[in-house]
Amino acid sequence: MAVANHTPVTVVGLGLMGQALAGAFLKAGHATTVWNRSSDKAAGLVGEGATLAPSLKEAIEASPLIVLCVTDYDVVRSLLDSVSGDLAGKTLVNLTSGHSEGARETAEWVLEHGAQYLDGAIMAIPPVIGTEHATLLYGGSKEAYDAHESALKALGGATHLGTDYQLASLYDVALLGIMWGVLNSFLHGAALVGTAGVDASTFAPFANNWIGAVTNFVSAYAGQIDQGDFTAHDATIDTHLATMIHLIHESKAKGISSELPEFVKAVTDRAVAAGEGKSSYAAMFEQFKNAAK
Amino acid sequence: MAVANHTPVTVVGLGLMGQALAGAFLKAGHATTVWNRSSDKAAGLVGEGATLAPSLKEAIEASPLIVLCVTDYDVVRSLLDSVSGDLAGKTLVNLTSGHSEGARETAEWVLEHGAQYLDGAIMAIPPVIGTEHATLLYGGSKEAYDAHESALKALGGATHLGTDYQLASLYDVALLGIMWGVLNSFLHGAALVGTAGVDASTFAPFANNWIGAVTNFVSAYAGQIDQGDFTAHDATIDTHLATMIHLIHESKAKGISSELPEFVKAVTDRAVAAGEGKSSYAAMFEQFKNAAK
Ligand SMILES: NC(=O)c1ccc[n+]([C@@H]2O[C@H](COP(=O)([O-])OP(=O)(O)OC[C@H]3O[C@@H](n4cnc5c(N)ncnc54)[C@H](OP(=O)(O)O)[C@@H]3O)[C@@H](O)[C@H]2O)c1
Ligand SMILES: NC(=O)c1ccc[n+]([C@@H]2O[C@H](COP(=O)([O-])OP(=O)(O)OC[C@H]3O[C@@H](n4cnc5c(N)ncnc54)[C@H](OP(=O)(O)O)[C@@H]3O)[C@@H](O)[C@H]2O)c1
Repeated sequence: MAVANHTPVTVVGLGLMGQALAGAFLKAGHATTVWNRSSDKAAGLVGEGATLAPSLKEAIEASPLIVLCVTDYDVVRSLLDSVSGDLAGKTLVNLTSGHSEGARETAEWVLEHGAQYLDGAIMAIPPVIGTEHATLLYGGSKEAYDAHESALKALGGATHLGTDYQLASLYDVALLGIMWGVLNSFLHGAALVGTAGVDASTFAPFANNWIGAVTNFVSAYAGQIDQGDFTAHDATIDTHLATMIHLIHESKAKGISSELPEFVKAVTDRAVAAGEGKSSYAAMFEQFKNAAK
Repeated sequence: MAVANHTPVTVVGLGLMGQALAGAFLKAGHATTVWNRSSDKAAGLVGEGATLAPSLKEAIEASPLIVLCVTDYDVVRSLLDSVSGDLAGKTLVNLTSGHSEGARETAEWVLEHGAQYLDGAIMAIPPVIGTEHATLLYGGSKEAYDAHESALKALGGATHLGTDYQLASLYDVALLGIMWGVLNSFLHGAALVGTAGVDASTFAPFANNWIGAVTNFVSAYAGQIDQGDFTAHDATIDTHLATMIHLIHESKAKGISSELPEFVKAVTDRAVAAGEGKSSYAAMFEQFKNAAK
């Protein structure tokens, strides 16, 4: 049910994610116009109260706030090119995943055409869109963000990262990298304890509880990186290295792959060679920042 | 202040960790006897009410519950050898870090000498011992654990993992591996967003919030591993791979090391080559379990 003081919204792109976004706007009471190349994907949303625009041009005209979610930035640009004369005064929020250059170039192009631009990243899967479990990050015009924050909150948790249009795409891949870091090391750990007959589901709560503790180290090390002060207040890199060797030994002894801890050790060896053996683990920052010589 | 219904405890080894352990027992009201090769390290604890035993033999005789925390298992074995006739009827809790073989061999030796044995791992640094922030894991005699659980809880959170003496040392290194997985990927992510002028301390709360979300994936994937059912309910490995390439590209474009995402991609390439492209990320388990061909 559309509510009078809710900004009308247009959603362009009705793939898995676009459908979830449009559904969340509808549920929150926004008059929602939708458009998709293949119009059949709009059927369910129309049943929930959305208006299917007969053309992209009419979809853009329908609302001051336009949310784009298609495959990639090339598709975004080709769609926007076809309606370049209709964008003035609009706010475009691009939730398509892409490289930071694409975000910056798209922002420049959009601004030249008289619209405001936010580049967003969705840290969630479609089923959790519209709930507190969805995190959406935005970079770009603060004015546009403030004007539409309440509408954007219909999609899930919303944060304005800053005015740099590249921020959302950088945060996006940086956070996905952390996801793989967590998952890969969990999978290796589960394989190791599995050699003693421990189920992955038995190990998982210990892993997750410990991961909670590790977030405290993340916060502490972040402060050290910003200060450039790598004094070891807990364990030194030398101590970590000894334990890495221990994990490699244990992996081999139990007949599982030692590839992951060997990779970690190789990076750590370089930190020690660079004279950081007595530093805190935060000094490993340099190894992940600068390519190996 | 020692309390009558608290088991008297002996702590052998007063390095950084042993001192923290003895201090926590004292604080919880246990009559605490201590022994260390270099007896000067006992001075502070004696000031807090500990009894310094004049010999290891007398330290063992003083209490039914003996906690050992020295450099490694070789030291444990050499110390225990020297008092092998005095161990019958005691419960030995070894909190020294070490390989799982060392735990198993030490357990066998201790049992032959008429004592009960628990092998433990300390997932904490000395300053948090005695608080809820310390997690201690134990494997071995359930009877011994149950008899002394309330005393062991003086050190922090305590869990009996099972009767296998190797469990604590396997969990220990598996969890440390997860710590490096989290920290390394955080450091790389911080370097990436740092290219846009974002402080590590600004990025850390986003990373930690996201890590909290990732613990839900850990739980879900653990279930898939145990079921051997790798149906993709969120993203497929193919989708992950595309985003990994994206992270590599972004890292190179911003002039930071792409070594970490390239390692992750190489493992993922193998999963795809093994026919798991349409599977959930949990299918990567096989890659971390089995050595690369
Ligand atoms: N799904 C997720 O879990 C998730 C999570 C976070 C971020 N994202 C991001 O959200 C974006 C969309 O993902 P999705 O899952 O919705 O993908 P999807 O289901 O594959 O949908 C792709 C959308 O792009 C449209 N499209 C593709 N090529 C086009 C073209 N040449 N002209 C016009 N429209 C075109 C498709 O239209 P047709 O229907 O006509 O083909 C469809 O609406 C992606 O950038 C993705 O990375 C997705
Ligand atoms: N510190 C931590 O953050 C931490 C965290 C988790 C687990 N741990 C584990 O706890 C254990 C102890 O660590 P720590 O930090 O307390 O180490 P530490 O400060 O280096 O203390 C080592 C202890 O071992 C004793 N020792 C070494 N060689 C000996 C020998 N040949 N004979 C008799 N005693 C000997 C030392 O006695 P002297 O005083 O006479 O040298 C000292 O009591 C290690 O296995 C460590 O991995 C430590």
